[in-house]
Amino acid sequence: MSGNSMGLLFTVTSFGESHGPAIGCVVDGCPPGMELSEADIQQELDRRKPGTSRHVTQRREPDTVEILSGVYQGKTTGTPIALLIRNTDQRSKDYGNIAETFRPGHADYTYWHKYGIRDPRGGGRSSARETAVRVAAGAIAKKWLKEKHGIVIRGHMSQVGEKLIPFTSWEHVSANPFFAPDEAIVPELEAYMDAVRKSLDSVGGKVRVVAENVPVGWGEPVYDRLDADIAYAMMNINAVKGVEIGAGFASVAQRGSEHGDELTPEGFASNHAGGILGGISTGQDIEVNIAIKPTSSIATPRRSIDKQGNPIMVETHGRHDPCVAIRATPIAEAMLALVLIDHALRHRAQCGDVHVDTPRIPGRIG
Amino acid sequence: MSGNSMGLLFTVTSFGESHGPAIGCVVDGCPPGMELSEADIQQELDRRKPGTSRHVTQRREPDTVEILSGVYQGKTTGTPIALLIRNTDQRSKDYGNIAETFRPGHADYTYWHKYGIRDPRGGGRSSARETAVRVAAGAIAKKWLKEKHGIVIRGHMSQVGEKLIPFTSWEHVSANPFFAPDEAIVPELEAYMDAVRKSLDSVGGKVRVVAENVPVGWGEPVYDRLDADIAYAMMNINAVKGVEIGAGFASVAQRGSEHGDELTPEGFASNHAGGILGGISTGQDIEVNIAIKPTSSIATPRRSIDKQGNPIMVETHGRHDPCVAIRATPIAEAMLALVLIDHALRHRAQCGDVHVDTPRIPGRIG
Amino acid sequence: MSGNSMGLLFTVTSFGESHGPAIGCVVDGCPPGMELSEADIQQELDRRKPGTSRHVTQRREPDTVEILSGVYQGKTTGTPIALLIRNTDQRSKDYGNIAETFRPGHADYTYWHKYGIRDPRGGGRSSARETAVRVAAGAIAKKWLKEKHGIVIRGHMSQVGEKLIPFTSWEHVSANPFFAPDEAIVPELEAYMDAVRKSLDSVGGKVRVVAENVPVGWGEPVYDRLDADIAYAMMNINAVKGVEIGAGFASVAQRGSEHGDELTPEGFASNHAGGILGGISTGQDIEVNIAIKPTSSIATPRRSIDKQGNPIMVETHGRHDPCVAIRATPIAEAMLALVLIDHALRHRAQCGDVHVDTPRIPGRIG
Amino acid sequence: MSGNSMGLLFTVTSFGESHGPAIGCVVDGCPPGMELSEADIQQELDRRKPGTSRHVTQRREPDTVEILSGVYQGKTTGTPIALLIRNTDQRSKDYGNIAETFRPGHADYTYWHKYGIRDPRGGGRSSARETAVRVAAGAIAKKWLKEKHGIVIRGHMSQVGEKLIPFTSWEHVSANPFFAPDEAIVPELEAYMDAVRKSLDSVGGKVRVVAENVPVGWGEPVYDRLDADIAYAMMNINAVKGVEIGAGFASVAQRGSEHGDELTPEGFASNHAGGILGGISTGQDIEVNIAIKPTSSIATPRRSIDKQGNPIMVETHGRHDPCVAIRATPIAEAMLALVLIDHALRHRAQCGDVHVDTPRIPGRIG
Repeated sequence: MSGNSMGLLFTVTSFGESHGPAIGCVVDGCPPGMELSEADIQQELDRRKPGTSRHVTQRREPDTVEILSGVYQGKTTGTPIALLIRNTDQRSKDYGNIAETFRPGHADYTYWHKYGIRDPRGGGRSSARETAVRVAAGAIAKKWLKEKHGIVIRGHMSQVGEKLIPFTSWEHVSANPFFAPDEAIVPELEAYMDAVRKSLDSVGGKVRVVAENVPVGWGEPVYDRLDADIAYAMMNINAVKGVEIGAGFASVAQRGSEHGDELTPEGFASNHAGGILGGISTGQDIEVNIAIKPTSSIATPRRSIDKQGNPIMVETHGRHDPCVAIRATPIAEAMLALVLIDHALRHRAQCGDVHVDTPRIPGRIG
Repeated sequence: MSGNSMGLLFTVTSFGESHGPAIGCVVDGCPPGMELSEADIQQELDRRKPGTSRHVTQRREPDTVEILSGVYQGKTTGTPIALLIRNTDQRSKDYGNIAETFRPGHADYTYWHKYGIRDPRGGGRSSARETAVRVAAGAIAKKWLKEKHGIVIRGHMSQVGEKLIPFTSWEHVSANPFFAPDEAIVPELEAYMDAVRKSLDSVGGKVRVVAENVPVGWGEPVYDRLDADIAYAMMNINAVKGVEIGAGFASVAQRGSEHGDELTPEGFASNHAGGILGGISTGQDIEVNIAIKPTSSIATPRRSIDKQGNPIMVETHGRHDPCVAIRATPIAEAMLALVLIDHALRHRAQCGDVHVDTPRIPGRIG
Repeated sequence: MSGNSMGLLFTVTSFGESHGPAIGCVVDGCPPGMELSEADIQQELDRRKPGTSRHVTQRREPDTVEILSGVYQGKTTGTPIALLIRNTDQRSKDYGNIAETFRPGHADYTYWHKYGIRDPRGGGRSSARETAVRVAAGAIAKKWLKEKHGIVIRGHMSQVGEKLIPFTSWEHVSANPFFAPDEAIVPELEAYMDAVRKSLDSVGGKVRVVAENVPVGWGEPVYDRLDADIAYAMMNINAVKGVEIGAGFASVAQRGSEHGDELTPEGFASNHAGGILGGISTGQDIEVNIAIKPTSSIATPRRSIDKQGNPIMVETHGRHDPCVAIRATPIAEAMLALVLIDHALRHRAQCGDVHVDTPRIPGRIG
Repeated sequence: MSGNSMGLLFTVTSFGESHGPAIGCVVDGCPPGMELSEADIQQELDRRKPGTSRHVTQRREPDTVEILSGVYQGKTTGTPIALLIRNTDQRSKDYGNIAETFRPGHADYTYWHKYGIRDPRGGGRSSARETAVRVAAGAIAKKWLKEKHGIVIRGHMSQVGEKLIPFTSWEHVSANPFFAPDEAIVPELEAYMDAVRKSLDSVGGKVRVVAENVPVGWGEPVYDRLDADIAYAMMNINAVKGVEIGAGFASVAQRGSEHGDELTPEGFASNHAGGILGGISTGQDIEVNIAIKPTSSIATPRRSIDKQGNPIMVETHGRHDPCVAIRATPIAEAMLALVLIDHALRHRAQCGDVHVDTPRIPGRIG
């Protein structure tokens, strides 16, 4: 386990570099008998793929997925599902001039010191391109969670740079390039992003992800808590610098009498917990917020050093997302799905027999 | 792996309930030949133990640790180090009346539905008492990191409820019951906490943890990123609802030209990264902030249900921390130490041979 | 995971040295709600304990087990079950003279070179004493397998040195100190063992373990095969040098038309497979044979070297089993139980939903 | 971890079915900086590939490997190495008639009951075809062990059916289709195998694998012993029914004074241990023997049942190895290499700092 696998029972093992021949993954542990086609996966990949608007990288990748194994006559067999995505648009020349220097805020400095070798082609393994395979694997997890438990996982952007995005409706999210749940704000965001791009700079963002209909009782109590595994999964997304569950940092200034969600026969009266207590799901919606830093590869000149330690100025040209957070929404959904299916399987391994007579109260409010 | 072990190569397996005979852990993977005594562990346990001031739970536990294995003639042997802490102060009667109801914000609801069985004695396994064993295991990790790499791990509270605590000096932290790095604010915090307690309520808090002198190159690149494992570890602490690395949520509104830390021959010019880029340590200080929710067990009456789903009012008496965040500082330090030692060992497994000629620039800033 | 844990979902983490304060383990992953008492575990420990006849070590250990956690009101809670066995009879002086030399066939040479430190007290961690905790953990596994699936796990010796032991009846096994399934041969074995002991030598043995009523479908298909995990578990027992499943080495000279067990509506017509095909249980009895080498600590002088590499003669006095295989029967049963429960839980995680209409044919013959 | 990954630090995750589009694996944890080309892997694959003589399956697979990731400018980068082998010769019609029945001795019965779904195309996942990916992954491990530690891993057949094969020289092994270390016996083996094939039957075999120059100190002491991990690895090879380390089952009838290898300043005086004591390598050659059952798919009619439980007769036509053991030699070498590299990395993680002054005596004899 050298850091390219995730999940104990539903395990995703990822491989591939940005400008190598292909990226892909092996999904091990998917229960047998579920209908699965390449189209099921492709539709999620298409939500993340580059080049779909002027606000994301202009790299043109079709991100066409091929299922190499684990599916027979349209159904999962219980054996590993290997997914392959060939890289097609690799303009390595864009990156040639940066192989001898380190970009401020970029992983090239740490990779060099860790491995003593560096694949400068598009950031190699550190590129956000790798996240495509998580979206692909997450599509399988999402489908199982939906069909088996009715779980719905959705995400949206809640902030771009300093621009807050109000929540109006889930319906709006797919209708604009910003995954914004409010159509009215879209023109303002477009103007804002155009200005950021013109200033040769980049900007951060904030994404909210919600899972509805998660049963009570998933998660482990001490380590491998459901919220800990979610925090782990989210922080594994490139550029994420913060994770909140439920009230998150706002809970610091709350009183216990305000924070603790009251239980009523009709359900929980609020959801400051974000759907998790003691590391275990409550039946409330699982609520997660993540902070994403601005893209490090920018065209503004900045101070850095070369491999000999000499001071230089670095500016990065090429096709970079001015706000990596924009395409992070489907990735965050996928990561949440991967954590949930793993705990679904863990739960039925250890506690599959448990039946309590106590009524489970509705998790949702209103 | 049912959620009571943590770490791939330096593995802590925890056991024990709040009011059972004992708590403890097995630490597997500690390199052989390090001097280790019970006193080394005890001094860390004493920082976390209950009953040391009126601002924490009045339970009186000496938290005396016994080393059962893995140490011979004062040195670690490379075999598992088992640590045992007997419980001595168990007033189970304090909890007797709550076995049939669920406390708002407490794990008793989720435990009941997961396991179909519930140990109501002091919260059983969900009690913060379990964190003592992490502090004990963390003491071993801290010692190795210090002796082998000169790494210093320190934490302090930065906020109690709505009260911000300025950073004046690390020296102040051990001189007051709040782990506050500013002595001048202590009287104000004492008055504040007295008021919270008198109002039969509880309050949240915020803790900052820093690791200095971490070498460049620790951490994995895709999953098991150093920051992901830190987020996982911190969110595994009871009551934690949010984790930030470096600039954290503030990075959302930053520009790339502001966030990315410039490199100079004298070192990094800033530390928005919090010491981690692409999941791998940079040599800068590792900076972590965590948000801790207010204690759920409070004496203020709140709406809840009983096991039959009938509405009831619940108020919890007993000896609870009015602000669990206060004792969280040594726990957070321990968790950071456990993550770092695990990645130290992982690093030398895979990349122990790597030597780069490039000078490593200083991580710290003037 | 530094080699002291076993099992993915039902995980045993072992600790302790032969002459340290205690040995013990943490059992994580036991399903909640099973009745469990110390007596359930003690009865298995008593089958393995030293000092019960003149044919085993004369060390007098009561091997009294204490349950430290994970059981409440007589039932497992789903949280880790910690088991503690204090060492009481530690005559370290018996071992004093061997700290500077290496015994032929003993692990002290390899421990020294691996760890650079060595606990000579009774072999420290390499002592067969550690196997007591496996028997304790295995008792929990056995109980669950029996109650949940009706699985019966039994073992017996089939050979001591060159003496073959015929199988007459399971009833005989507990009625003699050799775990021999044939009472008539016992006097011969006693005389044989007395002669071995008098010759200041030791001898090997062979043990057969059988699990009945294992359902079809447990085990993984490629790695983590049920037979691979059994081989792993058995070879983890001190002194084991060979493992066979079903026909084992006899299958080398078999024809396919002889080896492959025919299926009939009444059940399998034979059991050369040993109950496992393609890594997955068939419903036949699981049949395992293990070879155990003679004890390395003997009083016969043998050539060796000291720490400086000088030639010396070594003879080991003290209280050693003249045939370690004798006490291996309950250990082998425990190891098989630990593998089976782990796969039982893994099976229901991934394939818990699968129902096939095909009738399952009886696994047993005659 | 649903049974398709192997290794803690050097992890191979396998995928693919016999008659699906492709088979392959992801190798995670290979140290960076090692030269690696497809040719390095291809040469090992060619030793295992089908269709090379009339004594193995006549399926014609070029087994051409493609490296998809983890190698840049001819060197490993430390990131996952994905290997892809497209299937080209899939005559599914050969298997069409067996989808509704179960072959005696074959995994189709157990797969059906485990997964409730069955891929009859060439045995799907249970086919020995999957072992190609282990040979590919093993080639990487072998190369690293050779370059870093001078370790040489070699295997040969020691028995085919009832025919014992004497050991004359390693030189002979590659010069005949039986991996026989004695050229003189080859005509006899050819005649024997021709007779087996004509009788529409199959036969078992025995393989010996040896690793030379393994350093002292690799392996874990209690579980994850080096010999336990080897037994696990070998038993994970299709059709293996028994594993021996060193003297193996012969040690049952040995005396301690015979079995324990004496140490002299010139080295060990014998090697009954097979190079492992207490789970840790001694520096002697590691010696492993495995028993392989006869192929279950034979053209001789045998009793079985169909999916409805009705009695039928089954005979399997198609292109099957009459002795699967023949092609097992490179597979067994690969599995041993995978175990050794994993323990090499584990050793330097935990004990990389240990230096003992004691001279290490030569492991080899004569």
